[in-house]
Amino acid sequence: MKLQNQQILDVNKKILEEHNDNFEFLANKLTKNGYDVNAILSKLSEFQVAIPSWALGAGGTRFGRFGFYGEPTTLEQKIEDVGILHALTQTAGAVSLHIPWDVPQDYNAVSELASSLDIKFDAVNSNTFQDQKDAKESYKYGSLSNTSQAVREQAIQHNIDVIKIGEKLGSKALTVWLADGSSFPGQNNFQTAFQNTQDSLKTIYKDIPEDWKMLIEYKPYEPNFYSTVIQDWGASLMLANECGDKAYTLVDLGHHLPNSNIEQIVSILSLKGKLGGFHFNDSKYGDDDLTVGSIKPYALFLIFNELVYGMANNPQNPDLAWMIDASHNIKDPLEDLIQSLEAIQEAFARALLVDQAALKAAQLDNDVVKCQEILQGAYRTDVRPLIEKARLNRGGAISPIKAYRELDVRNYLIKERGRNTVATGL
Amino acid sequence: MKLQNQQILDVNKKILEEHNDNFEFLANKLTKNGYDVNAILSKLSEFQVAIPSWALGAGGTRFGRFGFYGEPTTLEQKIEDVGILHALTQTAGAVSLHIPWDVPQDYNAVSELASSLDIKFDAVNSNTFQDQKDAKESYKYGSLSNTSQAVREQAIQHNIDVIKIGEKLGSKALTVWLADGSSFPGQNNFQTAFQNTQDSLKTIYKDIPEDWKMLIEYKPYEPNFYSTVIQDWGASLMLANECGDKAYTLVDLGHHLPNSNIEQIVSILSLKGKLGGFHFNDSKYGDDDLTVGSIKPYALFLIFNELVYGMANNPQNPDLAWMIDASHNIKDPLEDLIQSLEAIQEAFARALLVDQAALKAAQLDNDVVKCQEILQGAYRTDVRPLIEKARLNRGGAISPIKAYRELDVRNYLIKERGRNTVATGL
Amino acid sequence: MKLQNQQILDVNKKILEEHNDNFEFLANKLTKNGYDVNAILSKLSEFQVAIPSWALGAGGTRFGRFGFYGEPTTLEQKIEDVGILHALTQTAGAVSLHIPWDVPQDYNAVSELASSLDIKFDAVNSNTFQDQKDAKESYKYGSLSNTSQAVREQAIQHNIDVIKIGEKLGSKALTVWLADGSSFPGQNNFQTAFQNTQDSLKTIYKDIPEDWKMLIEYKPYEPNFYSTVIQDWGASLMLANECGDKAYTLVDLGHHLPNSNIEQIVSILSLKGKLGGFHFNDSKYGDDDLTVGSIKPYALFLIFNELVYGMANNPQNPDLAWMIDASHNIKDPLEDLIQSLEAIQEAFARALLVDQAALKAAQLDNDVVKCQEILQGAYRTDVRPLIEKARLNRGGAISPIKAYRELDVRNYLIKERGRNTVATGL
Amino acid sequence: MKLQNQQILDVNKKILEEHNDNFEFLANKLTKNGYDVNAILSKLSEFQVAIPSWALGAGGTRFGRFGFYGEPTTLEQKIEDVGILHALTQTAGAVSLHIPWDVPQDYNAVSELASSLDIKFDAVNSNTFQDQKDAKESYKYGSLSNTSQAVREQAIQHNIDVIKIGEKLGSKALTVWLADGSSFPGQNNFQTAFQNTQDSLKTIYKDIPEDWKMLIEYKPYEPNFYSTVIQDWGASLMLANECGDKAYTLVDLGHHLPNSNIEQIVSILSLKGKLGGFHFNDSKYGDDDLTVGSIKPYALFLIFNELVYGMANNPQNPDLAWMIDASHNIKDPLEDLIQSLEAIQEAFARALLVDQAALKAAQLDNDVVKCQEILQGAYRTDVRPLIEKARLNRGGAISPIKAYRELDVRNYLIKERGRNTVATGL
Repeated sequence: MKLQNQQILDVNKKILEEHNDNFEFLANKLTKNGYDVNAILSKLSEFQVAIPSWALGAGGTRFGRFGFYGEPTTLEQKIEDVGILHALTQTAGAVSLHIPWDVPQDYNAVSELASSLDIKFDAVNSNTFQDQKDAKESYKYGSLSNTSQAVREQAIQHNIDVIKIGEKLGSKALTVWLADGSSFPGQNNFQTAFQNTQDSLKTIYKDIPEDWKMLIEYKPYEPNFYSTVIQDWGASLMLANECGDKAYTLVDLGHHLPNSNIEQIVSILSLKGKLGGFHFNDSKYGDDDLTVGSIKPYALFLIFNELVYGMANNPQNPDLAWMIDASHNIKDPLEDLIQSLEAIQEAFARALLVDQAALKAAQLDNDVVKCQEILQGAYRTDVRPLIEKARLNRGGAISPIKAYRELDVRNYLIKERGRNTVATGL
Repeated sequence: MKLQNQQILDVNKKILEEHNDNFEFLANKLTKNGYDVNAILSKLSEFQVAIPSWALGAGGTRFGRFGFYGEPTTLEQKIEDVGILHALTQTAGAVSLHIPWDVPQDYNAVSELASSLDIKFDAVNSNTFQDQKDAKESYKYGSLSNTSQAVREQAIQHNIDVIKIGEKLGSKALTVWLADGSSFPGQNNFQTAFQNTQDSLKTIYKDIPEDWKMLIEYKPYEPNFYSTVIQDWGASLMLANECGDKAYTLVDLGHHLPNSNIEQIVSILSLKGKLGGFHFNDSKYGDDDLTVGSIKPYALFLIFNELVYGMANNPQNPDLAWMIDASHNIKDPLEDLIQSLEAIQEAFARALLVDQAALKAAQLDNDVVKCQEILQGAYRTDVRPLIEKARLNRGGAISPIKAYRELDVRNYLIKERGRNTVATGL
Repeated sequence: MKLQNQQILDVNKKILEEHNDNFEFLANKLTKNGYDVNAILSKLSEFQVAIPSWALGAGGTRFGRFGFYGEPTTLEQKIEDVGILHALTQTAGAVSLHIPWDVPQDYNAVSELASSLDIKFDAVNSNTFQDQKDAKESYKYGSLSNTSQAVREQAIQHNIDVIKIGEKLGSKALTVWLADGSSFPGQNNFQTAFQNTQDSLKTIYKDIPEDWKMLIEYKPYEPNFYSTVIQDWGASLMLANECGDKAYTLVDLGHHLPNSNIEQIVSILSLKGKLGGFHFNDSKYGDDDLTVGSIKPYALFLIFNELVYGMANNPQNPDLAWMIDASHNIKDPLEDLIQSLEAIQEAFARALLVDQAALKAAQLDNDVVKCQEILQGAYRTDVRPLIEKARLNRGGAISPIKAYRELDVRNYLIKERGRNTVATGL
Repeated sequence: MKLQNQQILDVNKKILEEHNDNFEFLANKLTKNGYDVNAILSKLSEFQVAIPSWALGAGGTRFGRFGFYGEPTTLEQKIEDVGILHALTQTAGAVSLHIPWDVPQDYNAVSELASSLDIKFDAVNSNTFQDQKDAKESYKYGSLSNTSQAVREQAIQHNIDVIKIGEKLGSKALTVWLADGSSFPGQNNFQTAFQNTQDSLKTIYKDIPEDWKMLIEYKPYEPNFYSTVIQDWGASLMLANECGDKAYTLVDLGHHLPNSNIEQIVSILSLKGKLGGFHFNDSKYGDDDLTVGSIKPYALFLIFNELVYGMANNPQNPDLAWMIDASHNIKDPLEDLIQSLEAIQEAFARALLVDQAALKAAQLDNDVVKCQEILQGAYRTDVRPLIEKARLNRGGAISPIKAYRELDVRNYLIKERGRNTVATGL
């Protein structure tokens, strides 16, 4: 299924007038206060977030999985789903593949399909946290950190294979999320595990193409429940520094201990030129994989405030790889992703409204009250008209959720694909 | 110092036009969408939050305290400070006293002063977590839970004394926050400590006047670092049930373990008719005493959503005692409180915009996406014009912070009181 | 496979002398200090912990599952596994079934098998957190709390069916763990969900036989990630009180927010006569399902200290239902359970060494240092000889892990059952 | 007051026989199992932990402070207190001073006193988290990170002054614990604060003598409640690397987010040759300052296991600075410290019993069950006879707590110093 521009225009018509009123009022107010509304709109329009292939089907918990109807079963269908999201939101212009779940069979066909939908291939993701059928070695006790050289070599080769797949599709980054660790004290030697990981990553790094990045993710726990080899940004940064200039730390919102100040981590990595990418999701308790902005929208805004600051002030960093990394099983996955995309745009728009010069002045005055007024003033602004306008300017939907429902997308997908499909890798 | 109505009107003038534009636009939009704007305004106007006497001076941490100039040193000055807050915000029409820090010397004078400033006396707070000079018994090892009968009796008598002081001032509730607990395993017997506490509270309860409430606060830790006798809402509710119909649980936002779902606690207590009061503050790590809404404004909104629901649907509860309980040492305490009051009003206004009928319908449909759209639709609305209008309608300031600064209040207070004053109890 | 007494005796022989030396030395020391060693041994011998049927195969995480060879595939094989555990440890004399994973086909045969291995049927567990094939209604949006009456009725009926199965096997308790809740703010109405749950439980309660208990478990999160209907002991107790005298709260070690003082919860429930059972496991981050005592053995000891106190001082409670509830995928499940059983016995033995009279006296003196000396004195004692002796006295293995390995149990099971078996329900 | 050797011998006599029995039994057992008991004893004897000067008086919480009688009021009295601890435990042979609370007036006298008690001067600690009377600049908004150059310079100069004081006393390290951070979002610019801190530390570093270390502590929160400049080991390590070879990270047990795997941090810092020191305490909720080993003794053992491993395998690290950093107000401070010292020795002794070769072999086999058996086998051993013997060998008390009480030390101190003394800095 592919959404046609006209379909979206037709839906927009019904709420266009209301949108125009709201936008005009807000734009006037912002202009009066010295903001360059067009500059903001153009930043919003340019901002593109990758959709991971595994978020298009319903996820699950270890207690069970409740599927959704009409899930994509092939890589092509997954890309079509991203096409739908992008047509509606105009901010989902990339897909992030997970290997071996998404190995293309016909590279040309897949590339052309993506291109026809204005979708790029963002970072490719390797998987050494599950055993694949017919794999010679098992990752039960680790992959890149394993004490067995044979296991490490298999995991290294897998990463190199992933790079090659990515190259054929135009990806420019490899994301390594390493689940390795231990579930019981004594199970592994922390130093050996770290050294092995470092050696493995350096070997993979040799195959990173010149114009690529290697993104090293970190996570404090799960699936291992006592220790994780790359447990925090400090460990990731250490490894990135050992690998070289093309290696960076990737921050995933859900991968932190309770109460971590994530915006500070983002800021310091940005200062050091080692922030390579950011994965969005939300959570209350752990790595809960909930819709972006559904639990802690103010924290998301504070993070975006640092990202905006970093993009303006830290040219030492590469363009960031943005991706949603959330997959739950209670909502229609496409609606879930639309809500995530809107929450991201909203946080970005609010962060763009922060008066950086005034903030800096208040900070120099130690006027803590005013600092808060400035941040909250931006945050309290209802930026929905800006986001709508940014989408409209590119041919997207004023309200993507409404359009998705009015256009009855899920039912079309069910008709095309059947009801009880299951996405690969789930 | 007492702010005159005209002073506030003069400051308002400069931003009145802008306010009118914003309000008119929002009111029209809301009206078009079926909201009764006047009803919302009148709920906002009626909403009054008590200011605790100890929040008017700078607080501190165990590592030190950085004072603020011109702090109030007498009860009268504290009430004057609340008067200033109320004149500006029109939502701080009550003060909550802490005994023995605030024992009046001349009850009539104090009552008249408060009355002249439109300030009521909300719940009175006892203190058995510190030793008072010349006290016969020490609370080092507990008060109402102490194994020594003499200590328990002293603590009980203190609470009864506090009730009597409250009666003279027109208070209608006693708040008991019990710091008792232990810092080391084995230090006390959990069952004995609980039983002693129950007996002590029941004794105090006998002296609770007919038209009063006894509010039992809970807290998981601090100042005790291993166990606290009344550690959570379950323990508080048990004790309230044992005491009787006039005893209720009091929820303090900062008194929960990391990640607690506080809105659910509020909702269930409300369902059971045992929610008696609510203390506002904000925090990232523990009981951090930060400005309301400065860290997790969406959580505050979700709590208000339950409070609004409870007020509409749970007549079994009494009128709630609302109070700010936050005192840090980086901001001017009065500006800090103004920011807290605004955050509370904002959360309340947004909660009033939740379309309860639509939400219920979506819940019955298990339309999780729509449920979220409804809540976030209300939350994303910029409600500042509503709050401004509600204040204006009562003669308050459109922007209390701006007015406070333009009227140079702190400097007047310093002139009146001197620079290096220290509030009692700090 | 069934272990013969003689096999265990043969293995014991090799380390019997060493055991005797150690036991004699410890027993003398304890006797000299006033302990009744035989009384302690007999309490240890009598202590029996149920093995849940689902812990006999390897568990997994949402990221994947790594199986173990020779897992039991039928209920009979599961009971045989428990028989092996019991033969070795003499403390695993019960099995706890999970319905519908373990519905017996031939009740007599199953009963006789269990009886021949000295295994009782402990609490039966219902499952309304997963959809069963061919089920008419789905639990995707809840079971006992669902807004749909049809769903609630199906879930209620399932619980009643479970009771009936349990009755045929001689169980005396139903454990209800309710996963119901929500993953997004607004998804459900807390009050409606709680009321529905209460009504459903009361309906089930009517079918609880006179000599049975209904055990209501609580858990703060997972599989739902925003709210859980029965989120803590306070909610569970409320529901148990509404149901009646045969309803109790069940405490699972892993089901608490970070830093919860679980021993205090146990103690207060015990005081109120509402502690019905206890599930053992260990964890560092959440509900990690790790081997008992592998992460926080001192916390386990402190809990046992309260359990021992409660068993001696709170006759208002029923006999507790003890069960291990842990299933990870890195260890041989039977070895994992043996380590859990030893950790439980160790904590129990140490708790039995706490000098309660001296502790009480030190508490009355507020001698906090001495209170700690008493607890830690008991904890620091190497109680392994006591546990070994208690096992020996009943014909068990001095070292169950050593015996399991020397007798090559896993290989026998693989030979009998085949390698790549998968336990039902996993 | 100074304890005489003979006093301790006299107290020891009464329990010497019992000790000898226990030691002999354990030593035989260990020897039989291949341990070199004398080597273990000599490691235990050599192990010395510094006592911080501020732990000798009762600490407090922000809710109040309950003093203890006979607290030391002068630096000399503090050193005498350490002398008492060292005489009894023979493991407290150093004191760590806090400037400006402990500036000596007569360096020679202080040095001689310490020397006569066999006490060395360990790391000196600077204080820029409180304002000193008559200080020109205030640290209210930070010290080394402050946006004001004048404030930074004052804080830098203070650290340099502290080094000079330390040099006169024979200290060989400066510990910098930086409380700087912010309590509200927006209050400071993370990047500016980090850069200023880095520059300030590099300036101080220039004055670090050749044979000294600079130890950089980290802490996630408190006294700042939104962000801390040096919030975790990653930030500390970054700064240490920028400063140079003599700069190291210092780990304080209480300065971590909930559930942090501290042993892994210790291990990786050790691997990288950047672990400079370790501060002991214990806690359940935050930085609770409780007696070492009173809450999580197994975690302490796991940390010691890494420290022992590091000392044996990572020669790239300096000798570690060990210090207790805990001060609560419920126990006699000296008894509290004795319990801490015993817990440290116990954890160290148990870690020395870990069979590193067997552990390595089990790790290579991925025999997770055996890895756990090895660690827990060491941990379950009752090592008290070893610690007693190590103390005895140096003339210390078999049971320091018993000796302290029998010798009635506190009452002697009260007689000497008076009852209601207050230690400087409290």
